[in-house]
Amino acid sequence: MEIILGSQSPRRRELLAGLGMPFAAVSIDADESYPGELQAGEIPAFISRTKAQAYAEQLRPDQLLITADTIVWSDGHMLGKPHSEQEAFDMIRSLSGKTHQVYTAVTFARKAPNYQLETIVDCTDVTFAELTDEEIRHYITCYRPMDKAGAYGVQEWIGYIACTAIHGSYFNVMGFPTHLVYAHLKKYIQLNG
Amino acid sequence: MEIILGSQSPRRRELLAGLGMPFAAVSIDADESYPGELQAGEIPAFISRTKAQAYAEQLRPDQLLITADTIVWSDGHMLGKPHSEQEAFDMIRSLSGKTHQVYTAVTFARKAPNYQLETIVDCTDVTFAELTDEEIRHYITCYRPMDKAGAYGVQEWIGYIACTAIHGSYFNVMGFPTHLVYAHLKKYIQLNG
Repeated sequence: MEIILGSQSPRRRELLAGLGMPFAAVSIDADESYPGELQAGEIPAFISRTKAQAYAEQLRPDQLLITADTIVWSDGHMLGKPHSEQEAFDMIRSLSGKTHQVYTAVTFARKAPNYQLETIVDCTDVTFAELTDEEIRHYITCYRPMDKAGAYGVQEWIGYIACTAIHGSYFNVMGFPTHLVYAHLKKYIQLNG
Repeated sequence: MEIILGSQSPRRRELLAGLGMPFAAVSIDADESYPGELQAGEIPAFISRTKAQAYAEQLRPDQLLITADTIVWSDGHMLGKPHSEQEAFDMIRSLSGKTHQVYTAVTFARKAPNYQLETIVDCTDVTFAELTDEEIRHYITCYRPMDKAGAYGVQEWIGYIACTAIHGSYFNVMGFPTHLVYAHLKKYIQLNG
């Protein structure tokens, strides 16, 4: 069984590699829009399935495809990737001094014995300290988090200074709930030692 | 003010560097024994102070010394660094399928205006999935966690597969509660941008 990771995220590639199984990585272009009535974890679940379906024609029977999507959910609203520095600033300001949720969905797609998609969703509560405007501006200027949901990376400076606590999986906040992926894939993993 | 990190741990050096302030790192040899009546977070607090005191004679008035110590606390007992592979196996086996605590203490030492030590302690709950003997042996053989309290590193394979949830700071589990250190040091940090 060949494992294919359908993600451009260097963090997801690093975390899957850390599970110790060989895989190939591909980029999948997919429309990331979703029905407006979806809430919280339903959103990345839908998008991770869209990504898997966009690769369905190329998937071979001896392959297992993994796709994923991560969103930040705060006060009943989704925070996606910011479109400007001002939007990044507003997003981080809105997270300051509060607890938000990070949802990551992972979809596993196989073609044999029949075409099937299986999706798992993980949620982690993340609590941020109060941040000054100067700290938020420093982070945006030095780390340019325009490619990150909610405009922050927990493994970067802002995570070091602001993240006072999480409740759930840390790797899920990074974008890949490794313990759930491992539980799903362990039948394919050869342990040594 | 020159910041001195009194730790050989590459993880602590990396985490302090991630806060974005310049520092020098030194190794401090100190007796890590502690009074038998100490419990939980009192133990790393005592040891981090011992480390700071062992460097007191070398500390200059323009320097701020940071020392730290981390322990794993499980079922009312401390797990230190294992002395053998069998002990490492037994430690990880005892953590399997349960929640334990990781305590890190950080001591800040200054000589001016007068000699003073300040110690902070952070605690994180860490929940492990059930592990098979094969998984534990694989980890010990491939990652050799003999230098780690509780015989595991959360940022390694075992953390990826076993750590289903934490409650508190992830960086504290890695050995350095960055958000607390930042709050203490922010007056010395120059932000750009």
